[in-house]
Amino acid sequence: MTQQRIVDHTIEARWVIPVSSPGLVLENTAVVIQDGRVVAVLPIAEARQRYLPDATTVLAHHALIPGMINLHTHASMSLMRGIADDLPLMQWLNDRIWPAESRFVSERFVRDGTLLACAEMLAGGVTTFNDMYFFPEAAADAALRSGIRASLGMVVLDFPSSYAVDAEDYLNKGLAVRDVLRGQDRVSMCLAPHAPYTVSDRSFAKVLTYADQLGLGIHLHLHETQDEIKQSETTFGMRPLIRLAGLGLLGPNLLAAHGVHLNAAEIDLLAKQGCHIAHCPTSNLKLGSGVAPVSDMLMAGINVGLGTDGAASNNRMDMFSEMRLAALLAKSHGNATSLPAYQALQMATLNGARALGMDDRIGSIEPGKLADLVAVDFSSPEMQPCYDPLSHLVYVAGREHVSHTWVGGELCYDGGVHEHVDQSELKEIATLWQGKLKS
Amino acid sequence: MTQQRIVDHTIEARWVIPVSSPGLVLENTAVVIQDGRVVAVLPIAEARQRYLPDATTVLAHHALIPGMINLHTHASMSLMRGIADDLPLMQWLNDRIWPAESRFVSERFVRDGTLLACAEMLAGGVTTFNDMYFFPEAAADAALRSGIRASLGMVVLDFPSSYAVDAEDYLNKGLAVRDVLRGQDRVSMCLAPHAPYTVSDRSFAKVLTYADQLGLGIHLHLHETQDEIKQSETTFGMRPLIRLAGLGLLGPNLLAAHGVHLNAAEIDLLAKQGCHIAHCPTSNLKLGSGVAPVSDMLMAGINVGLGTDGAASNNRMDMFSEMRLAALLAKSHGNATSLPAYQALQMATLNGARALGMDDRIGSIEPGKLADLVAVDFSSPEMQPCYDPLSHLVYVAGREHVSHTWVGGELCYDGGVHEHVDQSELKEIATLWQGKLKS
Repeated sequence: MTQQRIVDHTIEARWVIPVSSPGLVLENTAVVIQDGRVVAVLPIAEARQRYLPDATTVLAHHALIPGMINLHTHASMSLMRGIADDLPLMQWLNDRIWPAESRFVSERFVRDGTLLACAEMLAGGVTTFNDMYFFPEAAADAALRSGIRASLGMVVLDFPSSYAVDAEDYLNKGLAVRDVLRGQDRVSMCLAPHAPYTVSDRSFAKVLTYADQLGLGIHLHLHETQDEIKQSETTFGMRPLIRLAGLGLLGPNLLAAHGVHLNAAEIDLLAKQGCHIAHCPTSNLKLGSGVAPVSDMLMAGINVGLGTDGAASNNRMDMFSEMRLAALLAKSHGNATSLPAYQALQMATLNGARALGMDDRIGSIEPGKLADLVAVDFSSPEMQPCYDPLSHLVYVAGREHVSHTWVGGELCYDGGVHEHVDQSELKEIATLWQGKLKS
Repeated sequence: MTQQRIVDHTIEARWVIPVSSPGLVLENTAVVIQDGRVVAVLPIAEARQRYLPDATTVLAHHALIPGMINLHTHASMSLMRGIADDLPLMQWLNDRIWPAESRFVSERFVRDGTLLACAEMLAGGVTTFNDMYFFPEAAADAALRSGIRASLGMVVLDFPSSYAVDAEDYLNKGLAVRDVLRGQDRVSMCLAPHAPYTVSDRSFAKVLTYADQLGLGIHLHLHETQDEIKQSETTFGMRPLIRLAGLGLLGPNLLAAHGVHLNAAEIDLLAKQGCHIAHCPTSNLKLGSGVAPVSDMLMAGINVGLGTDGAASNNRMDMFSEMRLAALLAKSHGNATSLPAYQALQMATLNGARALGMDDRIGSIEPGKLADLVAVDFSSPEMQPCYDPLSHLVYVAGREHVSHTWVGGELCYDGGVHEHVDQSELKEIATLWQGKLKS
């Protein structure tokens, strides 16, 4: 008999859907974890022979999937969940969101709101989020406390806020936070020039310089509405994407959120430059922005992930809803085979990792990658029967079926309980800010 | 002090959303129930003075809404949930669904599948469903056992099945079931000629005769796909709706499911004739059928309710998902104010009742109506904060937040537990049929 290797943890699951190759579903499979990383994915019987785990989690009726990656959000806007519904983007921004932000957004607002959002996301199977908001140091605090993985934007705008006075100030503050957070395993930073309509050429040039010097990703809003494009044509004589191309911003480190209004040439350009898209179907519908041409983007070879956007325009930070809606909406032009289930799951996981330049570490369940894992319980009546666990995951399951969420091998959420944050604290936070913002 | 009236039950809720008038939200309100009917809706303090209930349910963090009405479904197809995903309607029907049906559908299949579906629907806040399937006597058994309210179709087709040999046989069998069920409070019957492409003029004429003689509603599929319309143009030289109009079928007792492809004249015609539409947004997207022009229908004054369709084409029998998707999808043409939250809720409740001719009894919370009520728990982190309970209900809540479902004042579902059906029986049913259908 060969000697058994001692490991930290083995998860034995009815199904493992690793997303390492399209459509792959492994039955009765174990995922073996050591030092926060996956060391093996193999049949349960074999795992029991080869490994001696300190702990075993048995998931007899569950699918184990890679942790989901929420590729575009403004986490602390959870405190503005539902504050202004059934309104178009510009009215929503100008009349409701920006006034509320200028009055209320502070370090505490961001810490509290991000904590609430992290709890919601972990409970819904999200293990990584890509954020863009003021006071990223406060967002980092909340993320680190929750245990979730975060990519935080150093936001850049050409107008003042309660956070910073001008683009220079935004950048300096962001870079200072980056220095403080260096060495943190779970929190990283990227550059986040808000959008072409809020950032000048001069500020984009600075962003580009830092991106090149420091090897950072760039995360921005792009072609979200027709208005944005018209405004750019009036001000700059060209569409925003062409302006960004002229500024030299397009490349494999550029992640554009939305991309609702893109013509064929623009889709080609994004594909050729290796840019990534964060598709946010719910937010785009809810604000009346439109439907992004996702099937065309995928056909052109663009890497497309999924995002919830902030809770003020969604109003769920729920990647199961986004997966399902993305898969359904891509079929709206009459092709029921567009964006099948396996592709929706890949968008919610591996494609998100690629967009963040983190696919060497997260996005699929493979030996060597971090153990960011989510268990989805298939035992309730509304989940039965089950002929295909992968399509069930997209078309039947909801975030309410998530039973466990691990980040880097650490259990952060387990059957309604957050390991690091008490539900009563979340309630206090929500009550406090609801009272303030209601006024 | 005035004398208190003794009543069966008082529900004291943080919010009551009665749907009796658009957008109305009542705070700290009691719903008083006697003999299965609502007798009063009034402030909690006042209710405590005026009524002495045998039982009181306190819903401190909940919204109480009318039970939802699933206006178009094939309940027992729950057993085929996810059996064929990412396929277009005709391929899905011809290659997968119809072969499976002809081989497996029996009285027992329908009883078992409907029982599973009723459990799913009650747990998701559905108190009435409008069904179209074979063996309605078996569906009735399951519905009566579950406690849910059902409108069951006497299905008519011009091709044979395991249930009946020809249109005459379908009709006779349906009418016999109707006789047996007469006097049942919770189960009623309507005529259900399947669709213009499966029912001949002669059979439609018979359906019309019975509808007139017996005062019955008619429920059919209509203009679901472009194929259906083209086929009708080839065979009958006209679009299906025009054919139905010529046959004299249009009227306030006609409920058409889908209505995806309707031109302006057809929308006018449906409105003038007082026909009703069961909008099934998820199923229409999933099968690549398209997006129904719901805003145009509503503007024309057509009464539009919501349906999940069967679980083989959705794959959730979840009216919260349908409400949310209907509200989002109506905004896809760029108007974020289209189909606001209150209207989505009305479609899922009162409009459904109108379409079934039952709005004198169900669809809203009003004195004199049956106590078909659903409590939605707003206390979990992902539901907070809450600025507007009505928009929260549509854009934030999911069926997983349903805590109680009452039908005619009787508690049928309470915090994960079905009063009349054991979860282990549902599991056995699903396992049994999954084994058979997989083969």
